[in-house]
Amino acid sequence: MAQKIRIAVTPGDGIGPEVVAEAVHCLEALRSRHNLPMEWTRFPWPSHAWHEENGESMPADALDQLKQYDAILLGALGDPGPVDDPDRYLLPDSISLAPLLDMRKGFDQWVCERPARLLPGARQYLADERAKDIDMLVIRENSEGEYVGQGGRLRKGSPDEVATQMEVFTRRATDRIIRYGFEQARLRAAARAEEGKTRHFHTRDGKTCESQVCIVTKRNALRYWGDMYTEAFEELAKQYPDVATHHELVDAACMKFVQAPWAFDVVVASNLQGDILTDLAAVLSGGMGVAPSCNLNPDDPSMPSMFEPTHGSAPDIAGQGLADPTAMLFTTARMLEWLGRKNPAIAAAGRELYDAVAADLAENAGTTRGTQEIGKAVRDRL
Amino acid sequence: MAQKIRIAVTPGDGIGPEVVAEAVHCLEALRSRHNLPMEWTRFPWPSHAWHEENGESMPADALDQLKQYDAILLGALGDPGPVDDPDRYLLPDSISLAPLLDMRKGFDQWVCERPARLLPGARQYLADERAKDIDMLVIRENSEGEYVGQGGRLRKGSPDEVATQMEVFTRRATDRIIRYGFEQARLRAAARAEEGKTRHFHTRDGKTCESQVCIVTKRNALRYWGDMYTEAFEELAKQYPDVATHHELVDAACMKFVQAPWAFDVVVASNLQGDILTDLAAVLSGGMGVAPSCNLNPDDPSMPSMFEPTHGSAPDIAGQGLADPTAMLFTTARMLEWLGRKNPAIAAAGRELYDAVAADLAENAGTTRGTQEIGKAVRDRL
Ligand SMILES: CC(C)[C@H](C(=O)O)[C@@H](O)C(=O)O
Ligand SMILES: CC(C)[C@H](C(=O)O)[C@@H](O)C(=O)O
Repeated sequence: MAQKIRIAVTPGDGIGPEVVAEAVHCLEALRSRHNLPMEWTRFPWPSHAWHEENGESMPADALDQLKQYDAILLGALGDPGPVDDPDRYLLPDSISLAPLLDMRKGFDQWVCERPARLLPGARQYLADERAKDIDMLVIRENSEGEYVGQGGRLRKGSPDEVATQMEVFTRRATDRIIRYGFEQARLRAAARAEEGKTRHFHTRDGKTCESQVCIVTKRNALRYWGDMYTEAFEELAKQYPDVATHHELVDAACMKFVQAPWAFDVVVASNLQGDILTDLAAVLSGGMGVAPSCNLNPDDPSMPSMFEPTHGSAPDIAGQGLADPTAMLFTTARMLEWLGRKNPAIAAAGRELYDAVAADLAENAGTTRGTQEIGKAVRDRL
Repeated sequence: MAQKIRIAVTPGDGIGPEVVAEAVHCLEALRSRHNLPMEWTRFPWPSHAWHEENGESMPADALDQLKQYDAILLGALGDPGPVDDPDRYLLPDSISLAPLLDMRKGFDQWVCERPARLLPGARQYLADERAKDIDMLVIRENSEGEYVGQGGRLRKGSPDEVATQMEVFTRRATDRIIRYGFEQARLRAAARAEEGKTRHFHTRDGKTCESQVCIVTKRNALRYWGDMYTEAFEELAKQYPDVATHHELVDAACMKFVQAPWAFDVVVASNLQGDILTDLAAVLSGGMGVAPSCNLNPDDPSMPSMFEPTHGSAPDIAGQGLADPTAMLFTTARMLEWLGRKNPAIAAAGRELYDAVAADLAENAGTTRGTQEIGKAVRDRL
């Protein structure tokens, strides 16, 4: 018998537990129907470190515990803090997100993948009808760059204060994320070919390719790593002559995401610029309510990857059964596909779940349904 | 007689000279009609420093020369380099933008202002009809932050390379840009009141205000300056109890710019984040073809401010008379309003030009017209 796959389920804060509950119901349904070798453990660790009398925040050895699992399914992190006490009130997302960044770093989840596809039934924010053709994958470098957390505050709080923040980029991490982008571009072209579809992208020297990687930097202002990214990209591109290459500056890329997003295929960006572009990508797919996300470590099987929807913890609607679990369910589907790399039955369950969520979305466009209602409707399709 | 106002006109690269020509014709028309005390000098300095045999690139003492003027009217900078020579080919915007950043820094143009308003006739990229109500002003810190250009490349070109880029933020520059934001919010509320309009913004403690400042950071990941910005904002807000305050993280801000941009009033952001948000703001107003921009030094009259459209030099259509001068003309109108702070006749000429450009835009929605045709149509309305 295949080895059991073990999933750590961390519902987190706010609407996290509600949407995760629906994900777990779907996992249960898929497991029993297909007799899948997988199990999960729930870690009820809300992130509110501010709430001193609360003992169940993420423990110090959280990463050690989670490392025993094949994947982490995370609901949402982010606790607004003591909202009734203005002096202790924290901005949403301000302190409670450390666990998220700790997991990404601790498990070297160096790829953050966020696809953008406007599925039938999802809200269309752009006026142009071609928005229906949006089909891109934004790949964010998830391990370094702007997020290294180095810097400080000199003369803190004084009128002469100087705050610094260091961005650190290594060629090793740059190469691996760019290479990952090229590999994904090839896979996407192959998947399209299987479905009998093709897309065409033009290179500067007049060649036509069936996939494209667009590298995003701000090299005209942030020259050091911008140049390194560009050189790494040009160098690696030689190994992928079948993939068209394209460069954008981050400001222009954001603009083009709104003006002509259907022209993109794979987009590779730094940690912060990728953060921004993936949020825009989420809008392009209909908004946070439907946008999946994952944090992957593709090369070290001892490190769990982490799957979380792009949305936050939405404390304002938490506990009311109003949150849309669609993004969480798409995320769960993506997790199963990932875990199924070595187990076709699990991968198939992932596609089954994806199709069920997509079908539910398409049939219920414009309706207002509660969390459980949507979860059940999806389950009924499995 | 009032002192003569002197404008340095720097057409720059690509389509710059074409659109600037229309701006100058409008300035001429306004000057002769209203007998305005202003004059201008043309500096034909394309930026192609790559082109070694060319002698007329921006000279070393360019800033000294420009400092003699009250304002700089810039067309566009950015030269793609020797496109026919792949080995020397530079990415568009890659090296030729130094003059732009040098001017901003050299003249301490610490405010970059880009309004977003979807005027009748401008292209609407968003599906929601409320896009017509978009009326925001994005204010970008233009003097430091991510753009200080500090950092380097260790072991350049090797697989062990490390590239660093330092972000440096001072409390002084942070305070002044935030204060500027609050002042603009008040001015906007007053201007609305004069037109008999009001907008309402709610504060966290349930108060209603007639204007709002939204501060953008990424303080959950870039903690040092994010916290300093937040503290400076909270501190200064006490002096503006009539202005509502709001915080956004940059990723969420970009998303909301697409999802509900009509909810924003004044937005204050750092140099890089402001760069991104102002490009999105340009899309919200109909795209680069109509979006004005200015780089201001509001407190040192010895330093010229610089006015440039948001668009680039568009080398692909340069010299063909196809470029839309609308953004350039709006930018020119903004320059006149700025220069008219002490001369009501010049300010009035700025409003006259603005109204003429807006009227031309409204009446010609969807038509394809050449650069000169649009310029003439606007002039005919003056
Ligand atoms: C919560 C925050 C630290 C995080 C990030 O910036 O990476 C989030 O925005 C995301 O995109 O996952
Ligand atoms: C050309 C570039 C350096 C510049 C910037 O990033 O400031 C441009 O994008 C802008 O917004 O004016």
